[in-house]
Amino acid sequence: MTEEQAMKYLQDTLFVVGGKWKLPILRAIHSGNYRFRDIQRSVPLITTRVLSKELKHLEENKLVIRTVYHSPLAVEYKVSDYTLSLLPVIKEMILWGKNHREKIREK
Amino acid sequence: MTEEQAMKYLQDTLFVVGGKWKLPILRAIHSGNYRFRDIQRSVPLITTRVLSKELKHLEENKLVIRTVYHSPLAVEYKVSDYTLSLLPVIKEMILWGKNHREKIREK
Repeated sequence: MTEEQAMKYLQDTLFVVGGKWKLPILRAIHSGNYRFRDIQRSVPLITTRVLSKELKHLEENKLVIRTVYHSPLAVEYKVSDYTLSLLPVIKEMILWGKNHREKIREK
Repeated sequence: MTEEQAMKYLQDTLFVVGGKWKLPILRAIHSGNYRFRDIQRSVPLITTRVLSKELKHLEENKLVIRTVYHSPLAVEYKVSDYTLSLLPVIKEMILWGKNHREKIREK
């Protein structure tokens, strides 16, 4: 892989799952929060409007599957199999954040 | 680590190195592009204004070290040792982007 290709792949990834909210939303759903309100409660500071928009974007990109149930009426979000391939990225970010917090605390 | 903690760490990481440009810039510098123009050339589509702003932000967060040389006058950017801890995140993103591109091509 050349440097140029690596940069392109990195930018592709950021294009699809970059931003403040997409990875936290995927993480929340993957952890068992399937309802809109549960997802919102699991992602600190996200607004209803932004969560709604981001879920639509993730659904369009096949990272989230939205299912409507009848009797009783309910909407559930699940992550797709493809999303599972993002777990290593999310895991490394969690580890880095943990280390970063400890590093800051040291000072 | 609880789910709440993991989410907090993930959001911390996104706060510090999230956005479209910071990880590509760090990658470019780490790959040996130390001058402003070289970094700009290595990060497709970034503008001078945005690169300048992002470098300042990265410098404030101790992820980039800016050095001014005299005779001849030159400014160089290097990544700090702390930045090296981000390489696993960047690596996983590059791998995901590569896989994503292949997946898209299949269809």
